[in-house]
Amino acid sequence: ADWTLEEAEGVLQLEKSFLFADFVSALAFADNLGALAEQEQHHPSLHIEWGRVTVNWYTHKVRGLHTNDFIMAAKTSALYEQLQQSASWGL
Amino acid sequence: ADWTLEEAEGVLQLEKSFLFADFVSALAFADNLGALAEQEQHHPSLHIEWGRVTVNWYTHKVRGLHTNDFIMAAKTSALYEQLQQSASWGL
Repeated sequence: ADWTLEEAEGVLQLEKSFLFADFVSALAFADNLGALAEQEQHHPSLHIEWGRVTVNWYTHKVRGLHTNDFIMAAKTSALYEQLQQSASWGL
Repeated sequence: ADWTLEEAEGVLQLEKSFLFADFVSALAFADNLGALAEQEQHHPSLHIEWGRVTVNWYTHKVRGLHTNDFIMAAKTSALYEQLQQSASWGL
């Protein structure tokens, strides 16, 4: 599934849920994504549950979407693919 | 502020928001809380935003609250106090 466009409190956001084997793996993804966010100085909102991280990208300043949100969404998906691959290689 | 009782999709939950100086500090709290959750084998849902982590405790199996949720809520508050103290000491 791809990113969906969601509206929360009048703010358009890009949203996608990523699945994991357990809570620890979900949190590890959040950590990696946090490092990426720091690097780009643009931060998502993250909802972490057991085996799932829902990521929302939007730009506070414009109360909606900026080009950078689409770029960060693509980078988030790439990070997930990359981590999934490392995990498989590790088995 | 103390923990509040919230209902989401028919499930009663304990909820509290904790404030931080930035995204990194918020994520560090989530990591520490994740370690605690693993130790107790009971996991919260976490909503991480810039400078804020909202923690929800509930028990999936009973679709509501169990004694353990109140215990984990107290431990979560204690962890926050502890980390705030370390941060002050580190300055």
